[in-house]
Amino acid sequence: MTDESSPRGRSGARLVHLPVHRDPRGGLSFAQHPEQIPFVPQRHFLLFGLEGGVPRGAHAHRALEQFVICVHGSCRVELESGRGRDEVHLADAWTALHVPPMVWTTITPTSADVVVSVLASAPYDAADYIRDYDEFVRLVRGG
Amino acid sequence: MTDESSPRGRSGARLVHLPVHRDPRGGLSFAQHPEQIPFVPQRHFLLFGLEGGVPRGAHAHRALEQFVICVHGSCRVELESGRGRDEVHLADAWTALHVPPMVWTTITPTSADVVVSVLASAPYDAADYIRDYDEFVRLVRGG
Repeated sequence: MTDESSPRGRSGARLVHLPVHRDPRGGLSFAQHPEQIPFVPQRHFLLFGLEGGVPRGAHAHRALEQFVICVHGSCRVELESGRGRDEVHLADAWTALHVPPMVWTTITPTSADVVVSVLASAPYDAADYIRDYDEFVRLVRGG
Repeated sequence: MTDESSPRGRSGARLVHLPVHRDPRGGLSFAQHPEQIPFVPQRHFLLFGLEGGVPRGAHAHRALEQFVICVHGSCRVELESGRGRDEVHLADAWTALHVPPMVWTTITPTSADVVVSVLASAPYDAADYIRDYDEFVRLVRGG
């Protein structure tokens, strides 16, 4: 996987290293469009109370883009598109993962008490989800 | 303090209870404009590595609105505007605090290892900050 100044990973996903300010009170990281986030966020969701080894996600989106940060604990993210696969580890509040459309994404916590923040490029739309892996493979091979 | 179906608190801030989905893999809470968030987020920042008792914030914004969630650990938020004061406790991923402009806001962690997510209604603008409490008091009394 690569950072924002480099080509995308094989899947098309990209790691984005966020600006961080630190002082004795703690840290602050930030992201805004267009500098760090390649879209204006229309939705925010939080995955919380995740336990190690139990995967989340395991679906793709037809058009939605996502900006993923593991804000507490750590997780492994597996990404697959028609172009290739990537595996990344997220474990801090200053590393984001930009996931473009049509990437099958699985998030597996690798610690206890994991919290993941996701900014999404559109409001919720059930029709945008591809939940069947065989259908996903047909779509990326045919596309 | 009051929730989204009730009048605002004395300071003008408001608690928003987010929709939550739970299953054996963990929980998911979400927020989008306009249902839960009263603005389209233009910036996201994370406060992390906060330790109990050391306050953050202690400033107001001239125009910025914020949507605050304590995504790990717990914190106390003190809010003051020209209309009055509120104190709220945030300790979960499904309770957000909407802070309108011109509210002096101080966030104090009340546990170890606190992470706070903030969605903001505009990109960063140093001129929007009021960092001097006496100036803030003059502005709200004169306004």
